[in-house]
Amino acid sequence: MLTLYYTPGTCALASHICLEEAGAEYEARRVDFAKQEQRQPAYLAINPKGRVPALVTPSGVLTETPALLVYIAQSFPQARLAPLADPFALARVQELNSFLCSTLHVAHAHRMRGHRWADDPDAIAEMKRKVPETVAAGFDYIERHAFVGPYVMGETYTIADPYLFTLARWMEGDEVDPARFPKVAAHREMMGERPAVRRALAMQLANG
Amino acid sequence: MLTLYYTPGTCALASHICLEEAGAEYEARRVDFAKQEQRQPAYLAINPKGRVPALVTPSGVLTETPALLVYIAQSFPQARLAPLADPFALARVQELNSFLCSTLHVAHAHRMRGHRWADDPDAIAEMKRKVPETVAAGFDYIERHAFVGPYVMGETYTIADPYLFTLARWMEGDEVDPARFPKVAAHREMMGERPAVRRALAMQLANG
Ligand SMILES: N[C@@H](CCC(=O)N[C@@H](CS)C(=O)NCC(=O)O)C(=O)O
Ligand SMILES: N[C@@H](CCC(=O)N[C@@H](CS)C(=O)NCC(=O)O)C(=O)O
Repeated sequence: MLTLYYTPGTCALASHICLEEAGAEYEARRVDFAKQEQRQPAYLAINPKGRVPALVTPSGVLTETPALLVYIAQSFPQARLAPLADPFALARVQELNSFLCSTLHVAHAHRMRGHRWADDPDAIAEMKRKVPETVAAGFDYIERHAFVGPYVMGETYTIADPYLFTLARWMEGDEVDPARFPKVAAHREMMGERPAVRRALAMQLANG
Repeated sequence: MLTLYYTPGTCALASHICLEEAGAEYEARRVDFAKQEQRQPAYLAINPKGRVPALVTPSGVLTETPALLVYIAQSFPQARLAPLADPFALARVQELNSFLCSTLHVAHAHRMRGHRWADDPDAIAEMKRKVPETVAAGFDYIERHAFVGPYVMGETYTIADPYLFTLARWMEGDEVDPARFPKVAAHREMMGERPAVRRALAMQLANG
């Protein structure tokens, strides 16, 4: 059995969708950011970083979206969520996931979590001001250089698709117009129709 | 044949060390940051992100350190650089590499590359001021929660070791005292003695 700790609206959605795509048996437990549950001892005992997602597995707890995604793909090989046997194709998936994690997600985080990198309120406000530009630059890179289509890696669905979808849902909140990135926008629409995506979103909504 | 694009002192060292550990046939080409070569058309044609590392492979160009590391491990299986067949153990490696890439490296980047996330010079100075604190917090997490020893994952050397080593070399420059993190500091010392590490460092020095 697996247990996914998530908060609605966060990057944990990518792992949640993958669990659904894999047909995994799992439980989804909500971490309430409004109550700062991610910083309370009970949750820090699961993930000392105080972040979501965290995945409790029979072997131990895993954190970091790119790690959860490849773990799910490798644990449920029949779901064919990643080209595990092809070093180059797998590295391409990891390349996009690493970019999403270290550049695009980080650009976005400067809007609500600027206090991670500065204490002065003016500096935090200045970071926030630049977010539409830096987030757009990340999507521009994907649109022009990484997106193959119809799935991000090409003909085959991979763990990079729900991760891109999850971050693409943040565009409007970051004041980035999806119309500027037609491939990413069409991908977001297509992904939204997948039964696994609908199930994960419905479950997150139902849990509050 | 593989070609690694690197700049001395950067995260590209992790991939460089792995190529040496793997016994790969490769060429190392220096990108001169002093001349802003990373932003010139010749290099942008290789990596449109304008960053190092980039690895030219027979199948295409790869970027992002965690992707290069797993590609090298999987392409040279006899070097046993990652527990490729064990989903949990491999995810643990990816978890640390993802943390290094998205949190610790990003914390460090706020010292010299604050302009990525703000334009105002005061905000950039304020980010720089906080770097010793955020970088130390990253090493504190590793020291207390991730480091097993003697290698970071335990008894076996993996691709996470040269990556941690590479980022640990930045501590003094970020005004973080290595003595605060005895396990990470001892690991850094041990890693520095490895022939593959010495060869990669010597090659980077010789190339200027
Ligand atoms: N590198 C991590 C980042 C995780 C992360 O930053 N999660 C955010 C939500 S998207 C979080 O838990 N934030 C809570 C907080 O900062 O208090 C990953 O990719 O999983
Ligand atoms: N997420 C990338 C980050 C690459 C990166 O930021 N490289 C730095 C050197 S450590 C760089 O090339 N900076 C040049 C610049 O910003 O102009 C990775 O892990 O490979």
